[in-house]
Amino acid sequence: MKIKIVAFDADDTLWNNELYFQDAEKRFCELLEDFLPQHTVTRELLQTELQNIAMYGYGIKAFTLSMVETAIRVTDKNIKAETIEKIIGFGRELLEKPVLLLDDVEDVLGSLRKKYRLVMATKGDLLDQERKLRKSGLSDYFHHIEIMSEKREPDYQKLIRHLDIHPGELMMIGNSIKSDILPVINMGGHGIHIPYHITWAHEKADAPIDHPNFRQAERIKDILNYL
Amino acid sequence: MKIKIVAFDADDTLWNNELYFQDAEKRFCELLEDFLPQHTVTRELLQTELQNIAMYGYGIKAFTLSMVETAIRVTDKNIKAETIEKIIGFGRELLEKPVLLLDDVEDVLGSLRKKYRLVMATKGDLLDQERKLRKSGLSDYFHHIEIMSEKREPDYQKLIRHLDIHPGELMMIGNSIKSDILPVINMGGHGIHIPYHITWAHEKADAPIDHPNFRQAERIKDILNYL
Repeated sequence: MKIKIVAFDADDTLWNNELYFQDAEKRFCELLEDFLPQHTVTRELLQTELQNIAMYGYGIKAFTLSMVETAIRVTDKNIKAETIEKIIGFGRELLEKPVLLLDDVEDVLGSLRKKYRLVMATKGDLLDQERKLRKSGLSDYFHHIEIMSEKREPDYQKLIRHLDIHPGELMMIGNSIKSDILPVINMGGHGIHIPYHITWAHEKADAPIDHPNFRQAERIKDILNYL
Repeated sequence: MKIKIVAFDADDTLWNNELYFQDAEKRFCELLEDFLPQHTVTRELLQTELQNIAMYGYGIKAFTLSMVETAIRVTDKNIKAETIEKIIGFGRELLEKPVLLLDDVEDVLGSLRKKYRLVMATKGDLLDQERKLRKSGLSDYFHHIEIMSEKREPDYQKLIRHLDIHPGELMMIGNSIKSDILPVINMGGHGIHIPYHITWAHEKADAPIDHPNFRQAERIKDILNYL
């Protein structure tokens, strides 16, 4: 294993993210309780989000539009403008959330940057991810920031061409088996999965536990055992 | 003038864009005619957009959310969900518009790429700009694609560091004096302005007509006189 670049996912790997979305979703469901039970609204929202990914991509603006569309659909257009305004407000609040680093992130980055070039590879709204990086105070640790519209194998292929390395020289660290681990391992790279305590339904996938390039860590500090 | 990189703005420089937005805006205003005269809605929408740029950035999703917010505000929350659904539909239609190249774009790119490395430097939604590039068929002309959340001087500074060139080796071509020309010239680069027949109010600025690094072209073919 001759790793040159260690790439980190950001949301729920370096800082908290999904819990803010789940909190917004909870309040969204409560808002529509008079029309439908909460678990049905959750299911309908996920369906809208999945249908919209190809068109809207990831991130808070996409999520906000998906909430509004879901609300209009499940209420059969019987929702008040005032309620839609509240839903848009949930999106705006998400954009203003603080960036809370997970435990030991700075120590781990500080230690790894002495041996490797570090990269941040994240997907979502361009502006929002830039803002979170700025708020995080982590910019200086990274040699390169890649904000991707998707995290599939061709997207990682593009990244390693850009970084001028071979797949086997890339180690990707992240909380999503589907987006951070599988595409990287499939192209010959390495991956360490660090689970976050909640995972968006769309990101769930089975870990490739038997693959020689795959490692599992409980928390970010543990990746130092492998690097 | 020792230009190494010729960078092109995309929307309204390589392909039509603003006319689709103006068409959507027109239909948006017509939708609200019962509440307010069209020119007032236009003004209110622009105000919402400008207030939202710091938070939402540029692009179609930001525009869609700004339309919905404006509609709720100017109708004093007396707008039906059905109308909001139509407004969201305008945004979705924008995302599906074809990419129509402006005249002579392929000829000019084909000719310039023999002498320079070509770059596309555009702002807006990440996913949407990638999709437009793909639809345009122009990907192969470009050495590098930069999708930026803003086009201010620090953003161009970052771009030239990334491209490993001096400011004086960059020629930027675009339709917006404010976003494509002024920041580049201010840092010591070169710019050629090619006006598009309509300009978003937010992008209007005076041309630096007396600056030695500034050139004005009527259409894209004319830039070959300078390069």
